[in-house]
This record gives sequence, structure tokens and C-alpha cells, in this order.
Amino acid sequence: MAFLVGLLTGVIASLINLAIENITGLKMLRMVTLVRERRYWAGFLYFAGVNLGLTFVAAALCVVFAPTAAGPGIPEIKAYLNGVDTPNMFGAPQLIVKIVGSIGAVSSGMDLGKEGPLVHIGACLANLLSQGGEGRWRLRWRWLRFFNNDRDRRDLITCGASSGVCAAFRAPVGGVLFALEEVATWWRSALLWRTFFSTATVVVVLRGFIEVCRNGRCGMFGEGGLILFDVSGVTVRYHAGDLLPVTLVGVLGGLFGALYNHVLHQVLRLYNLINARGRLAKLALALAVSVLTSAGLYLLPFAVPCTPCSAAGAAAASCPTVGKSGNFKQFNCPDGFYNDLASLLHATNTDATRNIFSTGTAGEFRLDSLLIFFAIYCVLGLLTFGIAVPSGLFLPIILMGSAYGRIAALVLARFVRIDHGLYAVLGAAALMSGSMRMTVSLCVIFLELTNNLLLLPITMFVLLIAKTVGDAFNPSIYEIILDLKGLPFLEPKPETWMKDIAVGELAAAKPRAVTLQVVERVSTVVEVLRSTPHNGFPVLDRPRPGVSELHGLVLRSHLMAVLRKRWFLPERRRTEEWEAREKFSSTGLAEKAGSVDELQLSPEELDMYIDLHPFTNTTPYTVVETMSVAKAVVLFRTCALRHMLIIPKFQGLEISPIVGILTRQDLRAHNILGAFPLLANKRKVH
Amino acid sequence: MAFLVGLLTGVIASLINLAIENITGLKMLRMVTLVRERRYWAGFLYFAGVNLGLTFVAAALCVVFAPTAAGPGIPEIKAYLNGVDTPNMFGAPQLIVKIVGSIGAVSSGMDLGKEGPLVHIGACLANLLSQGGEGRWRLRWRWLRFFNNDRDRRDLITCGASSGVCAAFRAPVGGVLFALEEVATWWRSALLWRTFFSTATVVVVLRGFIEVCRNGRCGMFGEGGLILFDVSGVTVRYHAGDLLPVTLVGVLGGLFGALYNHVLHQVLRLYNLINARGRLAKLALALAVSVLTSAGLYLLPFAVPCTPCSAAGAAAASCPTVGKSGNFKQFNCPDGFYNDLASLLHATNTDATRNIFSTGTAGEFRLDSLLIFFAIYCVLGLLTFGIAVPSGLFLPIILMGSAYGRIAALVLARFVRIDHGLYAVLGAAALMSGSMRMTVSLCVIFLELTNNLLLLPITMFVLLIAKTVGDAFNPSIYEIILDLKGLPFLEPKPETWMKDIAVGELAAAKPRAVTLQVVERVSTVVEVLRSTPHNGFPVLDRPRPGVSELHGLVLRSHLMAVLRKRWFLPERRRTEEWEAREKFSSTGLAEKAGSVDELQLSPEELDMYIDLHPFTNTTPYTVVETMSVAKAVVLFRTCALRHMLIIPKFQGLEISPIVGILTRQDLRAHNILGAFPLLANKRKVH
Repeated sequence: MAFLVGLLTGVIASLINLAIENITGLKMLRMVTLVRERRYWAGFLYFAGVNLGLTFVAAALCVVFAPTAAGPGIPEIKAYLNGVDTPNMFGAPQLIVKIVGSIGAVSSGMDLGKEGPLVHIGACLANLLSQGGEGRWRLRWRWLRFFNNDRDRRDLITCGASSGVCAAFRAPVGGVLFALEEVATWWRSALLWRTFFSTATVVVVLRGFIEVCRNGRCGMFGEGGLILFDVSGVTVRYHAGDLLPVTLVGVLGGLFGALYNHVLHQVLRLYNLINARGRLAKLALALAVSVLTSAGLYLLPFAVPCTPCSAAGAAAASCPTVGKSGNFKQFNCPDGFYNDLASLLHATNTDATRNIFSTGTAGEFRLDSLLIFFAIYCVLGLLTFGIAVPSGLFLPIILMGSAYGRIAALVLARFVRIDHGLYAVLGAAALMSGSMRMTVSLCVIFLELTNNLLLLPITMFVLLIAKTVGDAFNPSIYEIILDLKGLPFLEPKPETWMKDIAVGELAAAKPRAVTLQVVERVSTVVEVLRSTPHNGFPVLDRPRPGVSELHGLVLRSHLMAVLRKRWFLPERRRTEEWEAREKFSSTGLAEKAGSVDELQLSPEELDMYIDLHPFTNTTPYTVVETMSVAKAVVLFRTCALRHMLIIPKFQGLEISPIVGILTRQDLRAHNILGAFPLLANKRKVH
Repeated sequence: MAFLVGLLTGVIASLINLAIENITGLKMLRMVTLVRERRYWAGFLYFAGVNLGLTFVAAALCVVFAPTAAGPGIPEIKAYLNGVDTPNMFGAPQLIVKIVGSIGAVSSGMDLGKEGPLVHIGACLANLLSQGGEGRWRLRWRWLRFFNNDRDRRDLITCGASSGVCAAFRAPVGGVLFALEEVATWWRSALLWRTFFSTATVVVVLRGFIEVCRNGRCGMFGEGGLILFDVSGVTVRYHAGDLLPVTLVGVLGGLFGALYNHVLHQVLRLYNLINARGRLAKLALALAVSVLTSAGLYLLPFAVPCTPCSAAGAAAASCPTVGKSGNFKQFNCPDGFYNDLASLLHATNTDATRNIFSTGTAGEFRLDSLLIFFAIYCVLGLLTFGIAVPSGLFLPIILMGSAYGRIAALVLARFVRIDHGLYAVLGAAALMSGSMRMTVSLCVIFLELTNNLLLLPITMFVLLIAKTVGDAFNPSIYEIILDLKGLPFLEPKPETWMKDIAVGELAAAKPRAVTLQVVERVSTVVEVLRSTPHNGFPVLDRPRPGVSELHGLVLRSHLMAVLRKRWFLPERRRTEEWEAREKFSSTGLAEKAGSVDELQLSPEELDMYIDLHPFTNTTPYTVVETMSVAKAVVLFRTCALRHMLIIPKFQGLEISPIVGILTRQDLRAHNILGAFPLLANKRKVH
């Protein structure tokens, strides 16, 4: 299965890439032709019109068919692997909208990447494969059933996510590490090997496509081979004296990253208000951003003077170029001159990154062009991310960061002895780390992107500094988005004040747990299901006088299955095991629970009994009521629980064998502080 | 702290390297001079004598001062991080013996690496630093106390292990991944970042040393810079046609690896018998292997004919060489000729690997030389590992594997279109994976060793194949060693038959758990401590009639602390919290427990009472007696427990609130099968 996930992700990623490269290439060629003919207005209208159309397709698809396909999808995957299932997230509509929308959005020249969406596409593929497909068209092969359980689905989605990263950056090891460091909550060593297998498959598929597309047969696709931004050409030599400027790049990168997170947070809150106004508002917002982007990309290159080709020095590449790619775009300049800002702005984001990373080009880009580039991409990056199209965060930040790195190199020119292209790489790494707060995975992704092993120690150094600086200000961008989306993500570490409160106190602050007897009247069960939204109910028993028993935990879905099948007993008795086994299969019990109200039960049926004991999980995880919440949170998270039963400290006749039941929501810091405001004060003291 | 660990590991690794390179270099130079003078016997005696002396130093140190310093130490680190503390493993004597012994053993030319020992050295440093030093010389700085707890010690040892790998292979990311994939049992995202930080420090230190030692100022050290075996010179081009030979290399590598594991297992069992005979036997074994090695290394090059330098083709290096390094050793050959086997055998293992990995040298090594090399290193590798000197497994396997890869390239010459040096890399990767069964970390280590990113996809492919093939035959080499050492390692996955047995049944098969009352007579406590070896005792209470309580779990060390301080009560009463807090500090309680018999208690004291309630952990992890062992094992491992209390299913007056107590030993598959032999049959059916 991991193989299939990798295979499909690789194929789809290649096709998306192919489509984006060709659409952008055609668009740019026509636009530049118009500009060369000095029909500037026509050029702008053509450029903006095509972009608007592409954005409209992407946004309309997103708004109408799959609102959850907007954005990168990575926070939702992270939440899913933490145990929070966002509805309608990993289905076929999301997959298709994400693919088409991603092509449209990226081709429209907006400041967003296809990297995040590719991760989501990988996860969707994994989910659909594990279930054999969507709804009515579902394949019902027998062997697929082996994967249709929560754990294998979780594992496959992890594989999908790492395949996505691998396909986006052509970085197999980076993909595995990204899944490990950023996405997954639980990790098993078997998973390492499975994700590795799927990313290996992706790489093989990508290699195949690149092989086929060699010699420009598929447009720009395949350029650079497996290494997207090769900077291995320069030999890196650095000494103690280089540490100071590099440290500065790291510190500033951390500050910028934290600031970016902060501002993006505010923008997203504003956008949430706009998007809440309905579909038209969402669409209008996306189109407005598209027009703004087109205007910026088209008009700004006119603002910088043309550079004579000779100034580029030894770079022997053809200069100027009018075609699709190349470092020296002629655009509006006379022959023999090039417009350095146009080289950066009039390309796919990938090509722009390749240009800005290119080594041996210290004098190629002017400081003012880079400043304009940095400024426009800061603004666009902040404005674009929240709109209703599939959008990734990686590339915008890499672009911003690389511009920042080159600016730093130009400003610090007298202290800089490392190639400016490498400074661009370091700047990108610093900003990524300052915003996303990843370390090892970023390091490997950058290594695999740039193929310069000697740069690794400085990259590590910069990443660590930027992360440390960023962490001093705010959480990572994904955590901010998770929080904004209101997903109940369980943090790996409990808060310190959680040690001061026991789970028993927590349970006492909640309504009393609704319990069932092991043989219960149908009417009681229906009543309980109707009146509470809980998903699990403790089952009690009193096998003989003087002895009480916490029999276990029964799930709402199982109760619904029993009601649906009307497996009722006329009298209050315990059934034998075979009776239930004859009637219920494990797949039947795993089906989705509908609503209680749909069941039409006659008064006679309501008067009958249900024996819950075949459906009860008799060994749920239990904690004593005096256990601290901190300890309970650790247990809950490490064992990946959904319900945790609280048992009393003392055992006696008059004492109920259950104190309460805790769920994920009960253990979230925010909710506990709501019930115990005094802890919030303590929190400040700590 | 992670910084300090990295710093010291880096410094020590560099010094070890320096010492080994220089000792070996001097030895070789003198030996070759004797050979050039045609005094063959004198050459042999000198060579064997020096080797014997060096081995004697290493083995004698190991045997006399620190028997646990023999071998690689990685299995013990793995066990420690799993929760099994091997006594006298991470102290100062082990550290010093490991450093000196490693220098001696590697310089003596034996077929062992310094990589495993470096990992152990890193772990020792981490442990000593976390405690502020050893025994009497311990630093008692206040801030060190923050690290002197189990979790931080565990984390630091993980950092130490990854620093060791990083220092050995100059592979910072590989080090982190090695710790993650092979060594650590529990992993937190904070740990990723800490290990990354310490490996980053190691790299900076190594860079510093290499910088200082440039231009041959420190002998051979520093050659190759940060990348040990650079093969980035060749551009890798591979096509579908190359898949077949590469697959073959992978499959055969897996087979060889599994075979190697199997034979090594047998050899180690034999050696265990010999080593059990006492110190002299150990020493004699080590010296015998040393003589055998010297004979092999010295005599075998005479068996191959000399190759004329011109046959080496375009390789413009000086040929032949008489000095310390170089691909074309003259040895016994006339001028203008070189002895290819001597190039491989008369060098440190690192240099031999560099020679055999060197690219563009398809014709340099003769098939018969390679076959001899492969054979002698197979034999020596198997014989050397178990002797009483610090020895690593990495380099012997890499050497064997690279020879195997080159042989494969020569044999398959007509199908091979990739450079033979790269085939050597692939062969080494295949054999490593076939024996050690790592994937991602090996992949990254090889990437960082060879600096050829384009080789990555094929390396991944070969690693996956070899691991799959190897797993079909036997467990990884580290698991075999763990098993041989009898360390109670908890496997990540419970066996399937564990689902068929409940923890209650397990407890019933053991002697009844020894429980204490919350206020207990001193004589009873002493008696319990004396008669049982348990480390934890359940504490029961009966606060009022009709109510019973499992008060919690008290540790042997805490009971001992109370007895040592003679904190006894004249009457049976509960104490107030401040009474105990006045008397005991957390550091006092954490001290090592001595033996009960050392305490001289008067009969009056024995008649007094102890109130256990301030010392009891009132919220131990509990499971219901009906829970399956499989579920309990998962809980035990994921929450890193030492004791797990079993509570009864039913609560009632006449029912004790505790059924039993489970420890690591109780949950090991081997021990369960001992008590329930019937399950073993079931196991076969499954």
C-alpha cells in the first residue's frame, strides 16, 4: 500500500508540475511578446486576465465543491494524526479540487506554493486507497479490509504526507523527516520504514518522468533533474570570521519569522471574518488578491532600470533572454540589457527560487530590485495565504527568505566571503525555521534541494539560531493555524499547572457521567443516546450483592448498531457469546452511526432489554481520581486514547465504581482553565 | 548540556583519530622500510610485535579495569534507553578504558572500527556530565541538579550517542537519525532538537580541528575534510537497465548480511564460553586474534602479483607510493609497479575504505586481490568482534561490503555502467542494511559520507531490498547481541499470542504480591525488604470500616531511606505533611539504597511504626485484571513504566483492592512462555 501511495503521489505530482510549467510558460511568452511590441496595456490586460481566469477556476472549485481543500491542509493532517478528524477532509472531491485548484492557483502567478497541497494530495490518496475508494464507487476487495482500520489508515496518511513532501521538493529523506518532526504525533519504527519505502517510490517515479521529459520535451519540467536548486557548483570555504554575518542572518531570520507569524495571524483572523460572509465574499477576496498580484508582478519591473548584460560578469549564459526561463530576462529593456526584477517576478515560483539561489552571481541582482522583490513578496505572502484556493506556505517563505539572504549579503558585502547564492539559501533556511520551527527536516530538505553537503554545518547553525529566536516570541505557524481553526490538538507536553489539579476535581466540575447497566432497558438506552452527545458510556454491573463492578465502556456507534438490528431481549438476562457473534460482524459494528431519531421503535420494543456485555470494552484505560491531570494527559496522548475512565480512590459498598469519564476536550488546557479560572492566575506566577 | 556533550565528544573523537592515524602511519612506514630492504622476516616481526603490544594494552585495560568497555557498547545504550540499566556501563573507568583501548585496538590493525566505541564514549560523557562526574570527585554545582533525573539523563545519553555517530562519520543528520531509528525507545520532538544541537556542535568542533590540522600538520588526520569518503566527483547516470544488477547487489547483500549475523551469533556463543574462563582466557583470545590478523595482513599481499602503474589508467596520482597513504602502495614490488592488495590492507580501516570507494578506478584493483580481501575480512570480522577490546561493527561491515560491491561490479562488468567506486558504496550499504537493518539513518549516513546526492535513490533502493531480504531470515545484529547478553529489552510490538492471556492470569502464576499497610511496623518492613528482592511494594489502607483503598506504591529505595534516617513513630498514627518534609529532601530520597542488613536496628526500634503515606506514589498506573497482556505491554512500554499494579475487576468488601504487581521481567515474552508453555504451541499455529 505504501508503494501504491508513493506511486500515485509521484505521478500526480509530476502531472501537476507539468501543467503548471506549461501554462505559466505559454502565458509569459505571450505577455512578453506584447511588451516587446510596446503594447504595455494589452500586455497587462492579457496577463491580469489570464491570472484572474485561473484564480477564478481554482477559487470557484474550492468554494463550491470542497471548502476544506483551501489552504495547505497540513494543519488538518497534523490534527488527524493527533486524533482529531476534520470532516470531509480526505475524500475524493477534496483530492480533485486540490489537484485542479492547485494547478490553477500556482499558474495564476500568485504567491503560493504547490508544496502544502501536494502533502494534502498524498494524504487524500492514502486515505482513499486505505478505504478502497469513496462512497458509492468504493472497491470492496477483500484484502483492502486489512487496511480499513484506524491504525493502518493513520500510518498510510503519514506515508502520504511524506510522499507529498518528497514529490514537492524531490527530497526523499526530507519527506520522511518532515512527517516525523512536524506531522506525526505517534511514531513507530515500522512507520519509519514504511514512509521511507513510499518516498523511495516517489523518487523512482519522478526520475522516470524526468527521464521521459528530457531535452525539453515537456516544457520546463525536469530541468535540474532530481535536484531542484543545485548550488553544488561552488566549493564552500568558511572560517571563524564568517560566523558573525551568518549568526546575524539567523537572528534576523528568527525575528522576521516570528513577525511574519504574528502578522499572518492577524490577517487570517480578518479573512475569517470576510470568508464567514458566504461564498461570494470568499470568491471576491480571492479575485481581488489575484488582481493585486498581477498588478504587482507586471508593473514593478518597470520601476527598476535596465542592467547591461556585461555587468553580470563572467556568467556566460545567454543574455538577455526573451523565452520562458533564464536568469536574464529582457522584458522591457533594449537589446544587450536585462531587467533583473523581471527575471525574478516573471517566472514560476520554482524558477524564481532557482534564479535567486544561483551561485556565482554576486553582481547580477541590484539591491533595489531585491528590496522591491522582498517587499512585494512579504505583502503578497501575507495576503494570499488565507484566500480560498489550495495554497502552500513553503515556497512563499523560501522566496522571501532567499531575497532576504541576498539583501543581507549585499548589505554586509564587506564581511561576506561566501557566495551570494549560498546566502540566499541560508536566508531561506533562517526564515523557514523562524516561521515553521522545524530543524532536522528543514536541514535535510535544504540539503536535498541544494546538493551542497559542505553547507550543512552552517545551515544547521542558522536553523538552530532562527528557531531559538522565533520560539522566544510565538508558536510555530502551524500551531497558530491549528488554534485558529479550533482543532483540539493535544500538545506533547502538559502545562506545569496541570500538576496542581487532580482528574477527580476535573470530573467533579463536569456534569455527572451518564452510566448504563450491563443489561439495560431499550427505552433508557434510547433516552441516553437522545439526550447526550457523548460517544462513550461507562457500563456498570452488580454481579452479586455486596460486589460492584465497572464492567467497561460501550461506544455510541455500537449501541446504535444494536438498536438498528433490534437485538432486544424480552427479559433481563445475560446472553451467551455466540448469540451476539451470530448477529453482528466486526465490519457491521464499524459502520457509521446515524441519528437515534431515525429509528422507529414500537412501545413494546422500548420495553425490552439490551444485554450490553458483548459490546462492552471490558478493559478501558482507567486512572485513579487522585491522579494529576498532567500525568493523565501524558497517558491519554501516549496511548492515543479517546476515553479515559476515572475510578475512585476508595472501594466500598456505597461507593460507585466510577467517578467520571474524560475525553480529549476535557483535557485541553483551554477548557480546564475555563472551568478553573484560578489556575490561570497560578499560571502567570509560574 | 547538549552543547557540552557535543563539544567534548568532538574533541575526544578528534584526538582519538589523531592518535590512531599517527600510530598507524609510523608503524606502516617502518614496516615498509624493512620490506623495501628485503628484510621480510624482520618486517613481519616488527609489524606483528607492534600490533601485539597495542592489542595487549587495549585488552589488558579492558579485562582488568572495565570489562563492560569491551565491544561496541551500542546494545547496552539501546537497552539503557529502553529502561534496562547495565551496571558499571557509563562511568569514568569505562570512558577512559574505551578511549585508550579504542586507540590501541584500532591502531593494532585489527578488523574493528572506532565508530561503536565513539558512540559509547559519547554516552559515557553525557552520563558523567549529567551527574557532575564520578563518585568522590563529583562536582556538586547547584545547576547540575536539574539534570540529575532519569529523564534528562536519558535524553543526554541519547544526545551523546548521536554525537558519537556524528563524530565517527562526520555525519550530523545521520547521527540524529541513528539515535532515533536504532538507539532510542522513547522519542519526543524536543529530543530531536537537542540531539540536533549536539551533533551541530560536534561538526563545528571537527571543522575546527580539521582547519588547525590542514596541510598535514597532524599526519593523516583531516584528510578529506568533513566528508570522509567523497565520491561526488562522478556524475551518476543510471537508467532502467541498471536496476537489475543493483537489485542483485541488494538481494545478495541481504543474504550475506543475514548469514553474517547467523555466523557471528555462533562465534559469539563460542567466545562467551571462552571468556567465561577468566581474565587470562580473555587476554589470550585477544592476543591470538591479533597475531592472526597481523599474519593475514602482512603475508597476503605477497600472494598477489604486482600491477604496473600504467594499468591504473588515467589516475594521475603518484604511483607507486611508499608513504603512509595513497591508492598505489609499492610494498614488495619493483619501481613502476604497485601491489593493490597492500593498498587495501596496509592502511587504517578508514583509509582502506577511502581507497576502495575511490571513483574512476575501475581497473585499479584486481579481482583476485578483492576476493582475498573480502575473504580475509569476513574471517577477521567474525573472529574479532567478540574479543575483549573496544570494537565497533560499522567499519568491518563497510569494508566487507565495499569489497563485495567491487567484486560484484567486476563480475557483472558487462551490465555495469555505473562507476565501480559507487558499486563499492552500494555494496557497503547493502551489507550494512542486511546486517543492521536500518534504513533512513544508514541512507543519510552514506549520503553524508560520500556526498553524492544523485546516488541517493539507488542507495534507498538497495537498502530497502537488503533489509527486506535480511528480515526474512533473522533479527538485526544488535537484537542478537541484546539477546545474547540477556538484557530484558522490551520489544515495540507485543506478540500476537499475548492477546489470549489476561494480566490477572499472569499475576496468578506469580507468588502473591507482597503488600504493606499504610502505617506499618518497622519489623514488618525490615522483614519484607530482607525476604524479597522487589523494588516496589503496593501500599493498602482501610481508612474506615467497609472501605478499602489501594493507597499506592512505595519504592524500596524510599523505604531504605526511612530506615536509614530512623524516622519511626512510637504509635500507629498518620503524620502531617510537614513532618516528613522537614526530615527528607528529594535528593536524599534519590540516593542509592544499600542493603537492609547493614542497618543495626534495636528491638525497641523494630517495635515502632512507619507512616508510609508521605513516601507513597498515590497514583501509580493501574490496569484491570481482565486486560490482555498485549494491551498491558503497550501501556508499559509507551509510558515507560517500571511497575504496573493490577486492580480487581470487582469491588467488594471481601475483595482485596490489589490483584498483583507486574514488572518488566513479568511482561517479557520469554518469561511468559516459561510460565504458560501452552501459549508456545499456540504461537506456532498463528
